[in-house]
Amino acid sequence: MKVTRREVLAGAAGVAALGANALAQSPQAPADPSKVRGRPSSVLGQRAPSEKPQRQARGGASSGTPHQDLVGTITPSDLHFERHHAGVPTVDPKTYSLLIHGMVERPMMFTLADLKRFPAATRVCFLECSGNFGRTAPPETTPQQLAGLTSSSEWTGVMLSTLFREVGVRPGATWFLAEGTDAAMLTRSIPVAKAMDDAMVAYGQNGEAIRPEQGYPARLLLPGWEGNSNVKWLRRIELSDRPFMTREETSKYTDPMANDTARMFSFVMDARSLITYPTYPVTVGKGWIEINGIAWTGYGRITRVDISTDGGNTWTAARLQEPVLPKAHTRFRHLWNWDGREAVIMSRASDETGYVQPTRAKLLAERGPGAAGYHLNPITGWVVRADGTVVYKQEAWG
Amino acid sequence: MKVTRREVLAGAAGVAALGANALAQSPQAPADPSKVRGRPSSVLGQRAPSEKPQRQARGGASSGTPHQDLVGTITPSDLHFERHHAGVPTVDPKTYSLLIHGMVERPMMFTLADLKRFPAATRVCFLECSGNFGRTAPPETTPQQLAGLTSSSEWTGVMLSTLFREVGVRPGATWFLAEGTDAAMLTRSIPVAKAMDDAMVAYGQNGEAIRPEQGYPARLLLPGWEGNSNVKWLRRIELSDRPFMTREETSKYTDPMANDTARMFSFVMDARSLITYPTYPVTVGKGWIEINGIAWTGYGRITRVDISTDGGNTWTAARLQEPVLPKAHTRFRHLWNWDGREAVIMSRASDETGYVQPTRAKLLAERGPGAAGYHLNPITGWVVRADGTVVYKQEAWG
Repeated sequence: MKVTRREVLAGAAGVAALGANALAQSPQAPADPSKVRGRPSSVLGQRAPSEKPQRQARGGASSGTPHQDLVGTITPSDLHFERHHAGVPTVDPKTYSLLIHGMVERPMMFTLADLKRFPAATRVCFLECSGNFGRTAPPETTPQQLAGLTSSSEWTGVMLSTLFREVGVRPGATWFLAEGTDAAMLTRSIPVAKAMDDAMVAYGQNGEAIRPEQGYPARLLLPGWEGNSNVKWLRRIELSDRPFMTREETSKYTDPMANDTARMFSFVMDARSLITYPTYPVTVGKGWIEINGIAWTGYGRITRVDISTDGGNTWTAARLQEPVLPKAHTRFRHLWNWDGREAVIMSRASDETGYVQPTRAKLLAERGPGAAGYHLNPITGWVVRADGTVVYKQEAWG
Repeated sequence: MKVTRREVLAGAAGVAALGANALAQSPQAPADPSKVRGRPSSVLGQRAPSEKPQRQARGGASSGTPHQDLVGTITPSDLHFERHHAGVPTVDPKTYSLLIHGMVERPMMFTLADLKRFPAATRVCFLECSGNFGRTAPPETTPQQLAGLTSSSEWTGVMLSTLFREVGVRPGATWFLAEGTDAAMLTRSIPVAKAMDDAMVAYGQNGEAIRPEQGYPARLLLPGWEGNSNVKWLRRIELSDRPFMTREETSKYTDPMANDTARMFSFVMDARSLITYPTYPVTVGKGWIEINGIAWTGYGRITRVDISTDGGNTWTAARLQEPVLPKAHTRFRHLWNWDGREAVIMSRASDETGYVQPTRAKLLAERGPGAAGYHLNPITGWVVRADGTVVYKQEAWG
């Protein structure tokens, strides 16, 4: 990187100005941009032509965030993962309404304008699909393929507790049903306690209207809870004194355990971390490398992320990017001086409850070989090969 | 908003399912979206067809953020304001380089890949053009037209102090020149002390690569300092023992004062607040209205925003949305029960230095009638008329 004065002057003299026409609508960069007038201002910005981050669509029903391409902690809205059971519905915001009824004093219907008139709140939090893990994956697996179904946004909306006070929750009402207006009419049972804690009906995402795939014009937001329970395109809430035992929560989102029981309503997403650099498909060189990635927990704040560069034998605390917000992606960074020999790098998250992200072996012992593909958050490793290529470290399941 | 059970049932029975073809690529919403399969997943999300926030371009050299359409604190990257003196250059990230030379031990050239190898940092901060105020504006003025040249993003990059340690700043080097690679070759002189404090060379914005209008592939970021000094498309930094007295900082960004002196290098943006709702062009109804908006200061954290609903006679503290981050847009909210009579609403920001956003009269007394249109941050009022329409409260200048 060191340059001499001679090289600097040679560079300046070597400038070849392109004609303005050659630049007009072309993504081609001129040899010296300082010799060519640039584009005028525009009503909507676009990415640089050479930057092409994309979600990875899987079978039409989901798409994952390209974590290996991202920095910081906010997921751009058009790269926020999506998961739906009957496609993304088109909902007219003018006729949209949310009905709250059941065990309430005053059943009410709220238009979008009604929702926006209530006192609002804004918070950053992650959303993660509880199926955000492929148990078998080849070495050529990116962070996006492995765990693209988590994203982080700044959400704005009305606290659900505000709406519940408006309708008057009856004594004894302990659960509510949340129903979406998509063709799956996705329904989940949620404890009223979550509504009175930090649940929101969100209509804003990263400063603007929520995106269609994330529930436009309004969704349920249950910070830290599995994505599926954060019902999108929310059209109805019914209060009751018991859970509704819907199809989604009985047939799909129940976890079989090793001791022949089944864990139901496993709402909260446990602490997890994911190295996003260096990972497949990058190639690195010897010397200083800043290992970095994201960590998150549904139980509050990440308190620590440890890094191993020797396959899990020794661990060192990474730096956490401040501010560490509860139930939000937290960026961690760790400087590593790579000596050029094959190494396995890993990250391990801890949260404020004292919980430590488990190894795959520990998860397996707890959940059994029949574990469904939900709520899997094992420590993940990446092999940095002697030639500098990086691949996902496969581990056998059961 | 109250509904009867009969109305609910009538609504459910009145559903008319549209054919799937009618929906295919159309933004038309079906009467009941739950009867129609939605769109499959996609590699890039798009806004809902009914949401059309746009920047407002002014003369090709700038465009402002539509604050009246936004919520929360993050500005979507494609709505971040832009301001340039010779258009937006197209810079090739593969050939991009940043030269640091002058009073340093080791002049060095850094490629984009070099910059990304250094330890990174992420922070949220606002950027505001120091010319972010129209002194004369009609009642039919939106927050975007009045103050659209401030925006807030999460930025990621390398601390400038890290690069300065790499090149070795020589004793006596107290200023540096930052030069852009646009056709204006915009140059500003910046104290080295800012570099050692919190200046960054940013390559990430809201999780992804910085956008072209904001300096792709890398810009200088001086949190809290006037936008113009945050040189975009940064290609050269030269260290010196004095300021360079460039055209931009002598002819343009110097503030004439009332006492016949001129204030130079007025880098820091003072505390300011802006109500974003209710403002022109909305119409409101009697009853509870949540007045809300954004406040920011280049000196650190906003500590208080006061709201007046009687033209400045009495003031009440608004709620500040946590977390309040230093040098970042802070959302404030205040519930107001409007009685239907004409009222003037205003907001007034205070920051951790004890500074209080001034009235227009106070600014005028200090700066004089010849004040240039820079660094103007007066308390701004909006008239809520008896018919519910809201307009900007004009005030005479000089």
